[in-house]
Amino acid sequence: MSAQSADVSGQVELDGEALAQRYTAVRNQSEYLCAPLEVEDYCVQSMDDASPIKWHLAHVTWFFETFILKALVPGYEPYHPEFERLFNSYYNGVGRPFPRPNRGDLSRPTVKEVYAYRAYIDQAMTSILLEEAPEELVDRVVLGLNHEQQHQELILTDLKHHFAQNPLYPIYRPVADKAPRQVGVIDYQTFAGGMAEVGARGGFSFDNELPRHDVFLHPFAFANRLVTNGEFLEFVLDGGYQSSHLWLSEGWSIVELENWQHPKYWLQRDGAWFEFCLSGLQPLDLTAPATHLSAHEAFAYAAWLGARLPTEFEWEYVAAQHDAQSAPSHCFVESDTYHPQGDDALENDISELFGQVWQWTSSSYGPYPGYRTLPGTLGEYNGKFMSSQLVLRGGSVATPRDHFRVSYRNFFYPPDRWQFTGIRLAKDI
Amino acid sequence: MSAQSADVSGQVELDGEALAQRYTAVRNQSEYLCAPLEVEDYCVQSMDDASPIKWHLAHVTWFFETFILKALVPGYEPYHPEFERLFNSYYNGVGRPFPRPNRGDLSRPTVKEVYAYRAYIDQAMTSILLEEAPEELVDRVVLGLNHEQQHQELILTDLKHHFAQNPLYPIYRPVADKAPRQVGVIDYQTFAGGMAEVGARGGFSFDNELPRHDVFLHPFAFANRLVTNGEFLEFVLDGGYQSSHLWLSEGWSIVELENWQHPKYWLQRDGAWFEFCLSGLQPLDLTAPATHLSAHEAFAYAAWLGARLPTEFEWEYVAAQHDAQSAPSHCFVESDTYHPQGDDALENDISELFGQVWQWTSSSYGPYPGYRTLPGTLGEYNGKFMSSQLVLRGGSVATPRDHFRVSYRNFFYPPDRWQFTGIRLAKDI
Amino acid sequence: MSAQSADVSGQVELDGEALAQRYTAVRNQSEYLCAPLEVEDYCVQSMDDASPIKWHLAHVTWFFETFILKALVPGYEPYHPEFERLFNSYYNGVGRPFPRPNRGDLSRPTVKEVYAYRAYIDQAMTSILLEEAPEELVDRVVLGLNHEQQHQELILTDLKHHFAQNPLYPIYRPVADKAPRQVGVIDYQTFAGGMAEVGARGGFSFDNELPRHDVFLHPFAFANRLVTNGEFLEFVLDGGYQSSHLWLSEGWSIVELENWQHPKYWLQRDGAWFEFCLSGLQPLDLTAPATHLSAHEAFAYAAWLGARLPTEFEWEYVAAQHDAQSAPSHCFVESDTYHPQGDDALENDISELFGQVWQWTSSSYGPYPGYRTLPGTLGEYNGKFMSSQLVLRGGSVATPRDHFRVSYRNFFYPPDRWQFTGIRLAKDI
Amino acid sequence: MSAQSADVSGQVELDGEALAQRYTAVRNQSEYLCAPLEVEDYCVQSMDDASPIKWHLAHVTWFFETFILKALVPGYEPYHPEFERLFNSYYNGVGRPFPRPNRGDLSRPTVKEVYAYRAYIDQAMTSILLEEAPEELVDRVVLGLNHEQQHQELILTDLKHHFAQNPLYPIYRPVADKAPRQVGVIDYQTFAGGMAEVGARGGFSFDNELPRHDVFLHPFAFANRLVTNGEFLEFVLDGGYQSSHLWLSEGWSIVELENWQHPKYWLQRDGAWFEFCLSGLQPLDLTAPATHLSAHEAFAYAAWLGARLPTEFEWEYVAAQHDAQSAPSHCFVESDTYHPQGDDALENDISELFGQVWQWTSSSYGPYPGYRTLPGTLGEYNGKFMSSQLVLRGGSVATPRDHFRVSYRNFFYPPDRWQFTGIRLAKDI
Repeated sequence: MSAQSADVSGQVELDGEALAQRYTAVRNQSEYLCAPLEVEDYCVQSMDDASPIKWHLAHVTWFFETFILKALVPGYEPYHPEFERLFNSYYNGVGRPFPRPNRGDLSRPTVKEVYAYRAYIDQAMTSILLEEAPEELVDRVVLGLNHEQQHQELILTDLKHHFAQNPLYPIYRPVADKAPRQVGVIDYQTFAGGMAEVGARGGFSFDNELPRHDVFLHPFAFANRLVTNGEFLEFVLDGGYQSSHLWLSEGWSIVELENWQHPKYWLQRDGAWFEFCLSGLQPLDLTAPATHLSAHEAFAYAAWLGARLPTEFEWEYVAAQHDAQSAPSHCFVESDTYHPQGDDALENDISELFGQVWQWTSSSYGPYPGYRTLPGTLGEYNGKFMSSQLVLRGGSVATPRDHFRVSYRNFFYPPDRWQFTGIRLAKDI
Repeated sequence: MSAQSADVSGQVELDGEALAQRYTAVRNQSEYLCAPLEVEDYCVQSMDDASPIKWHLAHVTWFFETFILKALVPGYEPYHPEFERLFNSYYNGVGRPFPRPNRGDLSRPTVKEVYAYRAYIDQAMTSILLEEAPEELVDRVVLGLNHEQQHQELILTDLKHHFAQNPLYPIYRPVADKAPRQVGVIDYQTFAGGMAEVGARGGFSFDNELPRHDVFLHPFAFANRLVTNGEFLEFVLDGGYQSSHLWLSEGWSIVELENWQHPKYWLQRDGAWFEFCLSGLQPLDLTAPATHLSAHEAFAYAAWLGARLPTEFEWEYVAAQHDAQSAPSHCFVESDTYHPQGDDALENDISELFGQVWQWTSSSYGPYPGYRTLPGTLGEYNGKFMSSQLVLRGGSVATPRDHFRVSYRNFFYPPDRWQFTGIRLAKDI
Repeated sequence: MSAQSADVSGQVELDGEALAQRYTAVRNQSEYLCAPLEVEDYCVQSMDDASPIKWHLAHVTWFFETFILKALVPGYEPYHPEFERLFNSYYNGVGRPFPRPNRGDLSRPTVKEVYAYRAYIDQAMTSILLEEAPEELVDRVVLGLNHEQQHQELILTDLKHHFAQNPLYPIYRPVADKAPRQVGVIDYQTFAGGMAEVGARGGFSFDNELPRHDVFLHPFAFANRLVTNGEFLEFVLDGGYQSSHLWLSEGWSIVELENWQHPKYWLQRDGAWFEFCLSGLQPLDLTAPATHLSAHEAFAYAAWLGARLPTEFEWEYVAAQHDAQSAPSHCFVESDTYHPQGDDALENDISELFGQVWQWTSSSYGPYPGYRTLPGTLGEYNGKFMSSQLVLRGGSVATPRDHFRVSYRNFFYPPDRWQFTGIRLAKDI
Repeated sequence: MSAQSADVSGQVELDGEALAQRYTAVRNQSEYLCAPLEVEDYCVQSMDDASPIKWHLAHVTWFFETFILKALVPGYEPYHPEFERLFNSYYNGVGRPFPRPNRGDLSRPTVKEVYAYRAYIDQAMTSILLEEAPEELVDRVVLGLNHEQQHQELILTDLKHHFAQNPLYPIYRPVADKAPRQVGVIDYQTFAGGMAEVGARGGFSFDNELPRHDVFLHPFAFANRLVTNGEFLEFVLDGGYQSSHLWLSEGWSIVELENWQHPKYWLQRDGAWFEFCLSGLQPLDLTAPATHLSAHEAFAYAAWLGARLPTEFEWEYVAAQHDAQSAPSHCFVESDTYHPQGDDALENDISELFGQVWQWTSSSYGPYPGYRTLPGTLGEYNGKFMSSQLVLRGGSVATPRDHFRVSYRNFFYPPDRWQFTGIRLAKDI
């Protein structure tokens, strides 16, 4: 952060009380998301890449304890000697983390004990925030809150992965029925390219969005909306998952190894298509944006149409001409596939940039020219993952609204498909 | 069972009311064992071979529902359509079981729902038992109760395995301190061998204990007590885990692959030895019987002393001269290593046959001459596991007392060491 | 060996010259078996359990160099400093062996260099044999020759496994067509059982055949011949590989995991059945003994018929009443499924004990009462494999004729099926 | 190729005879590289990513047979019906390839038979080349020759990997001793950046070098020479392999999993450092360019110095100002680490762009704007590997000299280190 985001507190002009309020609001939101859960639901780790919900709740708390209370507050008494190791995710600088694949093997601390840990840290944190806080501490609090918001999305995606393994198809939150929307043919808007500026402009950002810099874009065309379930179903029915020539070599290996036949949470019963949602098993909504697709499925789909995925800078260039904060707000408690209606209907202009699905780009996740990591152990936050991953842009139905940002760079491995990830098409001109 | 155990109900002369009482007592005991648990403790599966506690509670209930209520009670309404698959352990005849390694991935049904399932089945079961029950049904109830008692032991061993992964070392039930006992040198009693009769005599038994038949024994010597922690520690300190020539080839491969250095639940801190127990981390009691040993450790230990393990029939021959029911009763809630005191002190005679640890024998687990499985799907109960396993005899501190039986054949794979398993030595003469 | 086989040399009364002649004959036979091979054929390791042919040729030579020349001949100059490790199979007492799965990764020493190694050792060996050799040395030479003969069989089974992977189906040695033989229905001969003596009587034997001792047999019936391909095909066609209830649990796991549908070297083309043989791909001879079956296939086949496999002592008891050396001699260069004709026709009496296939028994491979391993590193020869394996009795078409012995105990793991292994049925009475 | 390289034959103005000569020269070079090999050396596959030498020789031949003789020559008689599948590498369009990890399991066809296959195809190829060949055929021949040259490098890297497994450290070709060269401190030359043109200019190129297009470069500094063994040794001795903070997360996982402690072919004996070379085990030459480094080692080394790797376009921009064909020619038969002497000494200017090691860049391997694959099955040549790999630029001591090309894009996975791959440093300004 340091120099790069030295204006964080300044820019948003948070005084101590405002920051304490924001702290409380973000912390409460994490617990609000867990309100529908049974104790048992907090404990399961359904794959190595996912974590138990209670681990998420404890880990984001550990972040505040480790990087703020222990690091910056003299005389702070650690809550529990073992928590430093138990709830460390991947910061080698803090010590050897508890092995990730075994997070689900720990019944203790219990859910109740994790909430008590949260309460203890919250009490300590709000108390220091109401006092006069130095800039470094404020910067770290802002980072910690953004960090917790990232985990709010993971809480939902990991829970969905977990529930989807269960033949009982548990319901996280029921939704009311909605009428299907009208969706026209995808329209490609053309852009002339040329020099463009990308990267964070100011306000809070993660280190990987910096420094802002120039890039050169070739002329391109950009789809005005996301690919829908109905459109992806055509690919499935046309034998897309059986056509090796459409896939990258790595993607085809996975298709064969894991016998992929359709998107991850789709299933067919008596000839009808269903999709597992956080609202339970639902008939497949053909008009909703397709979601839970890997980059390999996105590449193959685009190849099938003779199109391609946008680069991350094409995406950012287009999005910069729109207002992220004017994006419709989609409350996750209602639906895990965005489902606009009425005046929210799709227009010809570029739409669905934020709030439905993260959009795979063809850009590998790497450092910007002149990139510098945060100093110290926090330098492990983003930079060390800059190999073998692809950048996703936008934000999903599970993304906290104030994470919508044109310069935001999400990143996952090409085969990953348990996130809310979908397809924006582009073309060369 | 059928012919082989046709006298089950007759022998014990259980009328309906007595059987219903026994049913209730066994079922209550399972729940009593779970009384100290938090909800979270029921849910974890810490390795493929172990199961979540709530799965055990549901599976033993499924056994009664599947083989009695559904099979023999006209008009019975199944409790839940998915439970047939979810709680099937390995009976292919009932349909494809839910994959064993994924039992820990299911947060639902919740613990509360599993208890409700138990209550529903208990109500149905006691109601039919109080009516006039046909002999086949009574036989299956008796089998079902013995089956549940086997899982009572697994509940404790699986819980211990799970807790041992946790750096917080949770305590299942605390124990009061005990004074160490006096242990003399192991004494070998000699037996002349010759023809002997082995196998179940009457009363309830599992199919694998039948038919009773003749065997021929060579002269042998049999240790008067179990190997203690202190004795096994000498093996450790003498480099036993670094001496390939003491181990069978398979055992040595595991020692190298998993880097075994001592028994599974031992650990060293600041030069002192501890053992993880259900009462938490405890200083190693050098006078208690060594436990949680694999057959490979037992073989290597015996080789180190120039001794061997007994065959299952040597063990049974010796045990038949003692009274299993007179064995001291060791309540698990007190200790998970048997710890006799006072008048329970070891005598020169053969002791510790029952109630401390299961004792590895050198006998592979196979069918007796003339062995027949139970008819139908229940035939999968025991027979299909008759390859690559070894027989253990006796019974552990976690074994229900009425499972102590001279003809009882427990069986595990030679590398397994999460059960309460220890060493009885023998020798050729 | 020592005490147990102290009479080896005496019994056969080999003087030095005779032993040197026998040494030369056995060594030549190994090379004779390799005469049809291309250089490339010596180098492949087609699975971890198999070894390259040139490794076999070098390893048996290493055995003489290590346990005789280096151990007992003062002033002997080792041939090559690295060969001690490269050609050690599993004798930890000699040092850490080169990793087994990587034996196929070594192009050097070349085949020519391995033959030169053999010539060097042969020269040294015959020279000391023609001098006056002490008894211990003679015993070890006899052991070394028996060891080399065991590898002669492995040379053929490993080669067959290797060739079977190759879509070109290479031919080791062509065979002339034979007319199918006449095979009647299997006839069971009954035996009353009782006390019987088993184990080696004298002459050379391996340590695992000793000591000779008494066993008690229950009455049993014993099939007069082996199961044929035609009979096993009926099992296949009856859905044997799809019927979980016929299989032991471990066996069924392998059937599902590896998708077994028929015996290892069978294949179907245009509706007709073929078998890959060392003579290439051949139409399946329905009258020949079924071969390359795992114990699990043997168990399932027997279960399908309501029969069982014999114990190793039932087999030995029956075989002891026949003369192993009168068994027909089946030269491997002609056929790898025994194929008797004319006056060699099957009679009603017990037949096919030796020379067709090794016969799985239900007996796990363990030590005899009073068993002692050879002293020193040679103690690793047999004893350390006494877990999880089953005993096979008899001898196959690839077994050197003077290895036919009623007390001989071969052993493999229940899933293994690349050896010449088949089915002898038995029954309880 | 098609449109993109329609000028291939024109540009170099090869008439039929010249092309036939070139064909013969390239084909001879493959066989010349194999001249020092024993038959056994052709057969080993020492890891899944490597192939047996005889497979390489056959596969490049298959390429000509499949894409030219079978595809474009009417009446051509295939050499062998099984070779289509056996020697297909990864072209799904040609049918399902023989499984890559099993290439080493095939002793047949023998080496002699593979050479006979080559002779047959060569005869057919030269015969059609001397006739009037259509442009498409000529383009494919040129592609096939470039393809074979790529495999010439793989023949050497796969052989080195194979020989390095062997404790005998076989020698491919001995080298004469050389005096160490003088190496000064690395000097960074600065470049102002701005718009630049990259991609193939004309003449032959692979599809992945096209189309030529504009990129924008930020100011950067570029090291004047490669990192040496001596410099990399300082990183090793400074604990580089024990310092998690220097590594990307994926890299650190491999360091821990595979216990990396130094470059792949280095080893330490009695305190001295050695490197396994194709000339056998050699003392580590501290002045030679470090080689056989993975991208992860390159990233960590650069991080240790506060530098970075160049992007592929920075590299190309710098290289375009030098003449690839003036690079010193390093004959592989002499040395597998480039070792300049005398007038070949390093100057201050940028040096060692070609002919020592491939140089990792930070650029992920992806398509250029407007990239199009070759039509038909040949479209699988390059494009389908465009995920998770990094671009390497330059050319190694094993690269055929006419493959040195400023626009050439080699690509491997970040953990790969069996290629001749090293480090060129760069910096932001």
